[in-house]
Amino acid sequence: MQQENPPEIALLSLGVSRSEEVPAYQQIHEQIRRLILERRLAGGLRLPSSRALAEQLGVSRTTATAAYDELAAEGYVQSRRGAGVYVAADLPDDYLAIRQHKAGAEKGRNAIESSEDRPFDRSFEVGRPDAEAFPSRLWSQLLARSARRDMPALLREPAPNGLPSLRQAIARHLRDFRGLACDGRQVLITSGVREALELLCQALLAPGAGVIMEDPGYQAARQLFAARGHDVLSVPVDDQGLAVDPEGEAFRAAGMALVTPSRHYPLGMPLSAARRLALLDWADRQGAWIIEDDYDSEYRYSGRPLDALMSLDRSGRVIYLGSFSKVMFRGLRLGFLVVPDSLVETCAKVQSNLGPQAALVAQPAMASFIAEGHLATHLRRTRRLYAERLKTLQRSLAEAFSDVLEPLPQDGGMHVVCELRAALTARCGDRQLCDRAADAGLALTPLSPHYVGSRARQGLLLGFTGADEGAMQSAAKQLKTAIAGPSRPRVRAG
Amino acid sequence: MQQENPPEIALLSLGVSRSEEVPAYQQIHEQIRRLILERRLAGGLRLPSSRALAEQLGVSRTTATAAYDELAAEGYVQSRRGAGVYVAADLPDDYLAIRQHKAGAEKGRNAIESSEDRPFDRSFEVGRPDAEAFPSRLWSQLLARSARRDMPALLREPAPNGLPSLRQAIARHLRDFRGLACDGRQVLITSGVREALELLCQALLAPGAGVIMEDPGYQAARQLFAARGHDVLSVPVDDQGLAVDPEGEAFRAAGMALVTPSRHYPLGMPLSAARRLALLDWADRQGAWIIEDDYDSEYRYSGRPLDALMSLDRSGRVIYLGSFSKVMFRGLRLGFLVVPDSLVETCAKVQSNLGPQAALVAQPAMASFIAEGHLATHLRRTRRLYAERLKTLQRSLAEAFSDVLEPLPQDGGMHVVCELRAALTARCGDRQLCDRAADAGLALTPLSPHYVGSRARQGLLLGFTGADEGAMQSAAKQLKTAIAGPSRPRVRAG
Repeated sequence: MQQENPPEIALLSLGVSRSEEVPAYQQIHEQIRRLILERRLAGGLRLPSSRALAEQLGVSRTTATAAYDELAAEGYVQSRRGAGVYVAADLPDDYLAIRQHKAGAEKGRNAIESSEDRPFDRSFEVGRPDAEAFPSRLWSQLLARSARRDMPALLREPAPNGLPSLRQAIARHLRDFRGLACDGRQVLITSGVREALELLCQALLAPGAGVIMEDPGYQAARQLFAARGHDVLSVPVDDQGLAVDPEGEAFRAAGMALVTPSRHYPLGMPLSAARRLALLDWADRQGAWIIEDDYDSEYRYSGRPLDALMSLDRSGRVIYLGSFSKVMFRGLRLGFLVVPDSLVETCAKVQSNLGPQAALVAQPAMASFIAEGHLATHLRRTRRLYAERLKTLQRSLAEAFSDVLEPLPQDGGMHVVCELRAALTARCGDRQLCDRAADAGLALTPLSPHYVGSRARQGLLLGFTGADEGAMQSAAKQLKTAIAGPSRPRVRAG
Repeated sequence: MQQENPPEIALLSLGVSRSEEVPAYQQIHEQIRRLILERRLAGGLRLPSSRALAEQLGVSRTTATAAYDELAAEGYVQSRRGAGVYVAADLPDDYLAIRQHKAGAEKGRNAIESSEDRPFDRSFEVGRPDAEAFPSRLWSQLLARSARRDMPALLREPAPNGLPSLRQAIARHLRDFRGLACDGRQVLITSGVREALELLCQALLAPGAGVIMEDPGYQAARQLFAARGHDVLSVPVDDQGLAVDPEGEAFRAAGMALVTPSRHYPLGMPLSAARRLALLDWADRQGAWIIEDDYDSEYRYSGRPLDALMSLDRSGRVIYLGSFSKVMFRGLRLGFLVVPDSLVETCAKVQSNLGPQAALVAQPAMASFIAEGHLATHLRRTRRLYAERLKTLQRSLAEAFSDVLEPLPQDGGMHVVCELRAALTARCGDRQLCDRAADAGLALTPLSPHYVGSRARQGLLLGFTGADEGAMQSAAKQLKTAIAGPSRPRVRAG
C-alpha cells in the first residue's frame, strides 16, 4: 500500500489559501516541489491527473495544469503524453546544489552592517554630493519606467560602448555646457575614470611609454599607470597650472599627459591660456595624447566656465574624461570619455575586447535624466546650494581657524584647500592630523600625499558639498578638537 | 515705457494649460526661465508679486509662489524680503553653459544606432544567456521597488565593497549551491572578473611576480596580468585539467595561479581530485594564492556538481570568483569574489582605495532576486532549457558536420568545443574560418588563440544557450556555408 499510494498520501497535505498574495498555482507548485525534494514523492511515481488534482484542491483545472507545467519546466516532473505526470528521476537540485538544506548558524550574518554602521563624520569628504538635494523620487520614477520599457532591449543588446541614447544625450549635453563639438559615436560610457584610463593605456600607449602627471596630482591615476608598467613623469604645477616645457626631459619622453585644465586637482587653479596652447602644440608635434580630466567643471561660483581644452584642439590629440558620480550620486558609477574622430574605432574596439565595466541597468534612466533637462536643473540647484556652503565654510575657517589654517582662494569645485600654518606644522603634519581625526571619527583628506617631490605642502582638502550647515558646524568642532590634539586616547563611538 | 514695463509685456505671453501632465507651477517656471534666458526679462527687473501673477494666470497663489520658489532655488530670481521678486543679475547658466542655445545640425546623430543595428548572427556566441528565458517582468518589478525603497540609503551609503544585503545573499547562495562555508563579510561585489583580478594583483602580488595560467586558457586574464608587468607562466592542461607539478619551474616561480577547476575554460574537463589536492598543497607550502574562476559551474546536465575548490581549502589560500552576467544578463555587470577570512580586511581596503566599479543601482534588486528564491528558480528553468539546446546542437553536429567537425564530449556549461578535422584544416585554420564567418555575418569563436604554446588545437567554441532551435538551425546553415568557403565575396546584410 505504502509502495502503491504514497503520492496520494503525501498529496493530502496540499492546500491552497485564498487569502495569500501568492497565486494558487504557485502555492501548489511550491508544495509539490517541497514534497519531491524531501523525497516524500519519489522519482518515477505517477502523480494525480490535473483534473483529479483540481478536484481535490477545489481549484480550476487551468490552475492545476499551470502548477504541473511549472514543475515540468523546472524539471521536477515529466509529462508523458496521454500517460500522466511523473516525478522526475533526476532532480534539478542534484545538479545545482551541493547542500540544499544545510542548516547551521549563520556566522557573522550581521557583521557587515555593524562594521559599516559605525558613525563616521563624512562632512568634509571631497567630491561628495548632497544626498538631500538629489531628486531621488524623480530618479526612481525614471529607473522604474526604464526597467519596464527598456529591459527587453537591454537583455539583447550587448552595447559594449554604452547605450546609444545615453551616448547621444551626453554629446548634446557637452555641446551645450562645455562647448564640445562631438557626436554620440565619440562618447564611450565607462564605470569611471579607472576604466577610462585603462582603456586609453591599452589603446594608445606603447608598453613602458612615459605618462606626464601633474605634481601634486591624482594619486590613484599615478598608481594605475605605474601598475601597468608606465614611467610616470611628474611635472610641477605653479599658479598657471602644469609647467609645460616642450623641451624639458619629461615632455620629450612622454607619449601621454593627464591634466586637469578647468580646475587643477587638488589645488584648484585653471590651466592658463598660454599653457593650453603650448600643451596642444606639444602633443601635435610629439604625436602624444592629452587626457583632459574635467572632473568637476560643473561647479563654478563666479565668472564663466573656461572652454574645455578639447574644444581648442585642432589636431585630434585630446581625449576628454567626465563622470556623473559627483553630480548625481556615487553609487551610480557611470562616467564617459570623448575621443577624437580618428580614435573612435580603435577605442570602441579595445573597450569591447577588454570587456566593458559600466552596468547597462541605469543607462536608460541616465539618458532620460539628461535629455529631459533634469540634469541641467539639478546642476543649477546644486550650484546655488554649494555656493552657499562654500561661503559658510570660508566664514567658519576665517572665524575659528585663522591661526592654524590658511585657505587658498576658491571659486569653484567641491572642496577648499587649506594650508597648515607654521604654528600647526610645528606640532604635527597633515597626515598625522588626519589620522588623529580619523581616530576620533572624522574623515579628513591630507594634501601632502598628492605630491611626489620633496616640495610637498602640508594642508587639508575640505569638502563642503555633502553636509548641511548643522553637520558642517559639528564637523568643524571635531576638527578643532583634532587640531588641539595632541594625543587623545583612541575612542570611537558605538 | 519699454524700460519700465518689459516684465509685464513679456509676461503677457505666459499661459497655463490644464490639459498637460506638467504641473501648473512647472509650466510657469519654465516659461519665465525661458524669458530670462532670452534676455526678454533683464537682470534686476522686478517681477509681479505672486498674488498679481496668480490673478493674471488664473492659478492659485500657492502655485505662483511655487514657481517663484523654484526659480529662486535655481538662481534665476531673487526674493528680497518685503520688496518683491527680481530677475537675478548673474544667471546660473552663465556659470554652467558655454553655448546654451547653440543650434546646428546634429552630425551623426543616428550613426551609433545604424552601426549597431546591423544584423549579426550571435547564435553561437559563447556565454550568452537566453533573453526570452529571463524573467524580465519580475526583474523590472524588483528594480522599480528597490528604486523607490532603497534609493535614499544608496545616496548616503558609499558601500565600496558592495551592498551588505547582496553580500549576505550571495554568501547564503554559495553555501547552498557550492558548498562554500562563507559569510557576507568575505564577499566583495565587483563589476566582473576584470575588477576582481586587478584587485587581487594589487592586494596580493609583488610587482613582477609570476602568475600560473592554464594553456589553453582565458586570454583576457593573460593580457591583464601581462599589462600589469607580471610574468605569465603558461602550464599545459591534459584530461585531468592543469598539469600540477610543484617541482616544475613555473610552480616554483609563481606567487599565484588562476584556474577553472569545475570546468576548464575552454575545454570543459574538471580538475581531478588528485590535482586539486596537489594544487592546494603547493599553494600552502609555497605561500601562493589560487584564484578559482568558477565561471559556469551553474550548468551541469548530468552527474552532481563538484565541490568548489575553495571548500576543500584548509589553509586560506583560495579566492573564489563568480559572475552573474552569464546566468542573468550581460548588461548587469555584477560579479563577486569570496576571499578567505585572513584577506577580508586587506582586500576590502584595496577595493575601496582603487575605487569600486560595480554600480549600486542594481544591487538591491539582485539581493532580492537571490534571497526570494528567484535565482534558484531561474537556474532550474534555464538548466533544463540549455540541456535541450545542447542536445539539439549535438544532433546537428552529428548529422551535418561529422565530416569536418569533431565535438568534444560535453556535460555542462554554455558551449561545445569542436575540433576541426583534417579534411577541413587542410583548407583553412580556425581563425581564417571565423573571419570568413564574420564577413558573412556570423559570430564564431576560434579555439587556437586560447593557446600560448605551439601545440594549439584548431577548433571552434560553439555557444548553444542564447538562441532557440530556429535561430540555431539558421546559424548552422551559415556555418555550413562558411566551411564550404573558400572565398566568398565580402557581403554584409543592411
